Amino acid sequence: MQNRQITIAELPTDALTQAHFSLLETDMPVAGDGQVLLRVILMSIDAANRSWMKGATYRAAVQAGDAMPTYAICEVVDSNSPEFEAGDIVAAEATWSEYVTADARKVEKLPKVETLSHLMSVYGIAGKTAYHGLLSVGNPVAGETVLVSAAAGSVGGYVGQIAKALGCRVVGIAGGPEKCKWVEDALGFDACIDYREAGLSKKLAAACPNGVDVYFDNVGGKILESSLNFMNEKGRVVCCGAVSQYDTEAPAGPRNLPGIIVVKRLKMEGFIVMDFAHDDAKCIRAMQHWVATGQIKVTEDIVDGLENAPQALIGLLAGENKGKRMVRVAADPS
Amino acid sequence: MQNRQITIAELPTDALTQAHFSLLETDMPVAGDGQVLLRVILMSIDAANRSWMKGATYRAAVQAGDAMPTYAICEVVDSNSPEFEAGDIVAAEATWSEYVTADARKVEKLPKVETLSHLMSVYGIAGKTAYHGLLSVGNPVAGETVLVSAAAGSVGGYVGQIAKALGCRVVGIAGGPEKCKWVEDALGFDACIDYREAGLSKKLAAACPNGVDVYFDNVGGKILESSLNFMNEKGRVVCCGAVSQYDTEAPAGPRNLPGIIVVKRLKMEGFIVMDFAHDDAKCIRAMQHWVATGQIKVTEDIVDGLENAPQALIGLLAGENKGKRMVRVAADPS
Repeated sequence: MQNRQITIAELPTDALTQAHFSLLETDMPVAGDGQVLLRVILMSIDAANRSWMKGATYRAAVQAGDAMPTYAICEVVDSNSPEFEAGDIVAAEATWSEYVTADARKVEKLPKVETLSHLMSVYGIAGKTAYHGLLSVGNPVAGETVLVSAAAGSVGGYVGQIAKALGCRVVGIAGGPEKCKWVEDALGFDACIDYREAGLSKKLAAACPNGVDVYFDNVGGKILESSLNFMNEKGRVVCCGAVSQYDTEAPAGPRNLPGIIVVKRLKMEGFIVMDFAHDDAKCIRAMQHWVATGQIKVTEDIVDGLENAPQALIGLLAGENKGKRMVRVAADPS
Repeated sequence: MQNRQITIAELPTDALTQAHFSLLETDMPVAGDGQVLLRVILMSIDAANRSWMKGATYRAAVQAGDAMPTYAICEVVDSNSPEFEAGDIVAAEATWSEYVTADARKVEKLPKVETLSHLMSVYGIAGKTAYHGLLSVGNPVAGETVLVSAAAGSVGGYVGQIAKALGCRVVGIAGGPEKCKWVEDALGFDACIDYREAGLSKKLAAACPNGVDVYFDNVGGKILESSLNFMNEKGRVVCCGAVSQYDTEAPAGPRNLPGIIVVKRLKMEGFIVMDFAHDDAKCIRAMQHWVATGQIKVTEDIVDGLENAPQALIGLLAGENKGKRMVRVAADPS
């Protein structure tokens, strides 16, 4: 029995393409002492995959020849650990592969749920990132205006829906008229601005008549720069990512910073979802409540087939996904 | 009796020069109802003067034809308010003038002290800015490393001395070998780096072997960009000013932001000293304690004569001052 995996053929220096990846057939891995053998079911596709190819971040840099790392939902196939048995559903740091081995103590058992993908979207990394970043860093209050970039993306859609549930005015920024319409109609944002059209500043002024109290930044670059100009005094900028800056070797800084931070007494703060793991139970309870009331719609964008993972990431960086993008490598166990 | 004042002849579009100012002889102002007539003794010279010429900040923009606004220490000469009498020493929003009038309710009575300039340096806007920004925004703890730019400037020198008193490793950044030596020898910083020399990053690495926990930024631009690279996880960037960005129409943003804010979970926060006025009494008590123990040296840079105010500001923007710069318009009352 063979395994398949996708490795980095060559590290990109500019925009990522299919040529940077190789699909390999390899021997089936075998679980060593204290390890489990995992069948990969769903892989999370994130802009962070691209940033790992740029150098060390909160994890070691990915190198040419490596299989692409990924957060994955998997089924235990074989276990050399008393903690796990075949059939268990787990979350693990895997790679873009059909099968991987992992140290049992780094693997987390997941609850049995009807739809595994929900553990990656609304109750998974996307929903948790939105919840913890918005509430712990942004701290919005009913009546405030919350602006979210990449509003149709995996995290942005939940940020806006949570902010609406809290009683905020919510304005999104997304790419293209179709996505903007979806953000307004399907996700219930008060407005969504198409950054690909001219006149971003005029549109921000019109959509945010009372200014912006919380800006949840997924993109960095020019959109960050423009958004800073509309922040109210004591506004909070939640720094979640800089997707506009990952796929280039010529990043651009916001030219109005730090002068505007001083004048407006702004706070900009970065966070990583894992830092808030101690509050995950509270997060899941709140998200379940809002899903039950219909205030949060579960948005997922699932691409089928391991071999389509490179294109799924390239497309994500180009902003083609609506909702949490993942790749399905195998069907949910019945 | 005539008054003299300095007005803006023309707003600068790039570097400030003497040609942007005019020295005028005007009639003596007369205090109206509820007003006081003030003799200006000391004027605070701040990089903020330059930023006010760029547009609205936390105050209305300064326009061509206006007398330059300034925070000043003054003596009451005539009063139409029951709150003040001739001879009172007050702080006021004045202009670059020998005499000004002011609404009595906007004027603050100052304590009688031996040396009025101390109310502008260590116990005034410079010391208070250093104290509130470092403690309330930066929140350093003994054993952490605090990096300060414009370390020989009015605020930076106090920031470093307070951080030393708290038990931190303190590294300054200043322009030129003479100022750096003064920061190390006179102010007791552990190290001071000359940003005008090549190799800023290498020098930061050498001076901050344990990374930087708090960066007190007075300058913005390239120094901010380089400093961000040395921040530790959960580091705090205190945004106090962006002097490198005021005197130019081509500001530069830190290109590594916001990616690095996310990866390192940094917090960048701006503040204005007036926001912390409720804590000024605590600040003054602490500064008096550290002055008494010798842990804080009072640093002042006093330029004599109203007519020298433009050059005092131009020189400040070029980084020529050591300690709090002010202009003496009249002698302290005996």
